[in-house]
Amino acid sequence: MSDTHTPAYDQLSADQARAHHLAHLQSIAAWDQAVHMPPKGNEARAAALAELASLLHRMRTDPQLGQRIERAEQEPLNAEQRANLREIHRGWRQATALPESLVQARELAHARCEHAWRRQRPANDWNGFLGNFREVLKLAREEARLLQRQSGAPLYDNLMDRFEPGMTSARVDHLFGDLQSWLPGLIRQVRDKQATHTPVRPQGPFAIAAQRRLSEQVMCLFGFDFDAGRLDESTHPFTGGVPEDVRLTTRYDEADCIGALLATIHETGHALYEQNLPRNPIGQPVAMSRSMAIHESQSLSLEMQLGSHPGFVRRLLPLLREHLGPQPAFEGDNLHRLITRVTPGLIRVDADEVTYPAHVLLRYRIERALIEGQAEAEDIPALWDAQMQELLGLDTRGNHKDGALQDAHWSWGMFGYFPCYTLGAMYAAQWFATMRRLTPDLDQRIGRGDLQPVIGWLRQHIWTPASLWTTDELAQRASGEVLNPAHYRAHLEARYLA
Amino acid sequence: MSDTHTPAYDQLSADQARAHHLAHLQSIAAWDQAVHMPPKGNEARAAALAELASLLHRMRTDPQLGQRIERAEQEPLNAEQRANLREIHRGWRQATALPESLVQARELAHARCEHAWRRQRPANDWNGFLGNFREVLKLAREEARLLQRQSGAPLYDNLMDRFEPGMTSARVDHLFGDLQSWLPGLIRQVRDKQATHTPVRPQGPFAIAAQRRLSEQVMCLFGFDFDAGRLDESTHPFTGGVPEDVRLTTRYDEADCIGALLATIHETGHALYEQNLPRNPIGQPVAMSRSMAIHESQSLSLEMQLGSHPGFVRRLLPLLREHLGPQPAFEGDNLHRLITRVTPGLIRVDADEVTYPAHVLLRYRIERALIEGQAEAEDIPALWDAQMQELLGLDTRGNHKDGALQDAHWSWGMFGYFPCYTLGAMYAAQWFATMRRLTPDLDQRIGRGDLQPVIGWLRQHIWTPASLWTTDELAQRASGEVLNPAHYRAHLEARYLA
Repeated sequence: MSDTHTPAYDQLSADQARAHHLAHLQSIAAWDQAVHMPPKGNEARAAALAELASLLHRMRTDPQLGQRIERAEQEPLNAEQRANLREIHRGWRQATALPESLVQARELAHARCEHAWRRQRPANDWNGFLGNFREVLKLAREEARLLQRQSGAPLYDNLMDRFEPGMTSARVDHLFGDLQSWLPGLIRQVRDKQATHTPVRPQGPFAIAAQRRLSEQVMCLFGFDFDAGRLDESTHPFTGGVPEDVRLTTRYDEADCIGALLATIHETGHALYEQNLPRNPIGQPVAMSRSMAIHESQSLSLEMQLGSHPGFVRRLLPLLREHLGPQPAFEGDNLHRLITRVTPGLIRVDADEVTYPAHVLLRYRIERALIEGQAEAEDIPALWDAQMQELLGLDTRGNHKDGALQDAHWSWGMFGYFPCYTLGAMYAAQWFATMRRLTPDLDQRIGRGDLQPVIGWLRQHIWTPASLWTTDELAQRASGEVLNPAHYRAHLEARYLA
Repeated sequence: MSDTHTPAYDQLSADQARAHHLAHLQSIAAWDQAVHMPPKGNEARAAALAELASLLHRMRTDPQLGQRIERAEQEPLNAEQRANLREIHRGWRQATALPESLVQARELAHARCEHAWRRQRPANDWNGFLGNFREVLKLAREEARLLQRQSGAPLYDNLMDRFEPGMTSARVDHLFGDLQSWLPGLIRQVRDKQATHTPVRPQGPFAIAAQRRLSEQVMCLFGFDFDAGRLDESTHPFTGGVPEDVRLTTRYDEADCIGALLATIHETGHALYEQNLPRNPIGQPVAMSRSMAIHESQSLSLEMQLGSHPGFVRRLLPLLREHLGPQPAFEGDNLHRLITRVTPGLIRVDADEVTYPAHVLLRYRIERALIEGQAEAEDIPALWDAQMQELLGLDTRGNHKDGALQDAHWSWGMFGYFPCYTLGAMYAAQWFATMRRLTPDLDQRIGRGDLQPVIGWLRQHIWTPASLWTTDELAQRASGEVLNPAHYRAHLEARYLA
């Protein structure tokens, strides 16, 4: 409760805290579903989660909220409360734009599409997928249309706004247009430069228990608090849970010790952001993560900026030797060359730092065309193949399982998410450019294992402000400018061409 | 939905299913809290669970429910629907008897008392415990008083009815009076008989991973479905989760391989009951477990009737040798003699089959006096000591940590639960007496590893009927009579004195 008289705001704030408590249970149950749930629990779990989703939707669209927001706008709020009200208002606008029938139909279509996709992907069953996916797409277009009636923004922007508030497709076009102009050339140059050296691959098998201990030790290097979170395993690594109890997962492979380690480092970036969000005001949007691009800027600050940093990689070598035993792959600069090896491939999550944005570019173009009605679901394979040819020179004809079936995002209706990965990579480069201005010997300090300049900067400029400001204002305050893709290009050129 | 016109019943049934879906999330979050949650997650989890508990209480006390129940009573229901309505009515009466303020105060007092108890028990801090426990007791008395206004039953009976519907303290007095008349003599006779033989204890250490594989294999012997449940670890073994996804836990000790195995077998009894409850009608009380005494009759059918059965124990020996390596303790009838060794001790959960009911008798007498106002919280240590002297000849003066602080039940306000353990043991003996009448070579078949006569009987007579009948009718249909303690005495005399 605030000192001044703000009854409408206080009531809104209590509503948010209630929804936040229930969302806590939603988050833990979803984590459990991915990590522990046996197969026969699926139907009951889906029904339980759908019940809670309905309940939360009703709470978020309570007709009284609109009046409360209007009254609260007139109350004497401080800056934090005003920012919180801005976020509450945004959430309310998005929730009330959609009728409950659409929300339920969407949940059902997503669950059905994603569930069938798990079998369809290994079976390369594009036609089977198409049957469910058409319904997902139809509902996503309907959602975009309903949101547009309120916002007036282009169709696709409304869906992207759910993940990246304030971002527009016009701005993404500009940012990605720049990227597209130099990326293919950079990939060619890097591959030419790397053609003479082939790094040694680590020779397994690597015991899972040893890989787990290695992962946990590396998480400790970054300051992950194991009293407020856990590392577990799931088919697809993710970070879930709640800020007080962050659940991240990785995926081990006895034949490859590097994949799990990098996945752990990536998720640790997400996890640190969550663990270090402000605890007050509790359960309020202003104290939650700013956006998905900012979230990805945290995972990529760890995985790419640090995880592929030559000085940091050198610090990993003694740990690898300690947990997995010595071998030639863990000597000298071999591991760094391996991690920074650039090879066009079909799978986004396996892509190196340089070819990764090509995968995002492709998905952005296709999903935007789908939402705006320039393409239909059945056009995806041809579009996919054309783009893979253009961007990475790869043939994907007939190979759906390593094509559009490789990701679960579209099954879940997550149109507008993919750009966040590359926006996040751009932000991460911008953060590190800023840190280097403030700490000129940053790279030497990272090489000595001193991560304090990085962790301290992220804490001060990203984690603590949380959602106090808009994303542009956050970037401006943190780095002196809004998102500027020049830092990303400079980072890749410095690391891969120098 | 039923074929005939039963709109009020259908609405009630839909309400139950909604509450059931939300209770699913409650159950998984509570399991996670005991099994996985890191310490700093506790406060947020408690707040989340309290929010859901409030919400469920509001749903269960919705003023419309009373009218709906009245209308449904007049509808043309089949036998299953009528049984379901009986249980819905019971749940509604219990929920509406308590104001939300009491429910919230109770949750808070329990959480505070239990949380502090975790440190107070090892510190033997009776006075610290007393401070919190007085409030728990005060609220429990208030709850009993409010329930009594509705039921007219004696105070204590109202609390016991939450766990064991239909049971009365008059009937428990009768059952336990019988027990008390022969138990001390039986303990003496058994101890005299066992005085000449000292079984060999297994020599550890026993690797936890090997113990886990052993536990899992034994669960498979009983037919536990690992596609619909899991075995994990927690400080106190319990069975949670939901029927579609049963979560049981055990507790391993490197020095003792028998404790974890028997705990696993006990929890597997609970788990099989839950896994084999009918799936239709979904989320309805009629399809849920009958009562806690019946639940304990399932865990004790496995742990005591089977787990201490000489033929069954012989079947365990090759598994013990396979997973833990051969040793003298795993040869001949040593293990059976070890498991059936009778030794009065201070700790209920470590007690053998014969002295266990003495622990329950003691708790029943004390908790009933507390609720009925014949004793106050500060009287517990003296009452405890007097009863331990009388029943087991043990001195507990000053030793609170192995006295009243050993159990968490009272911290949680679970007055009326303890009798269920011994009622369950009595029911289990009655079930096995019935099985022996139906299958005269039952013991030989168990000795051959053929558990089908047991599992098949439990499935048909206990698991499938679920809550279709009252407990007395269930017992009558299953065994031809209501609970008859003579079977329990006969079982103990046959096993321990023959």
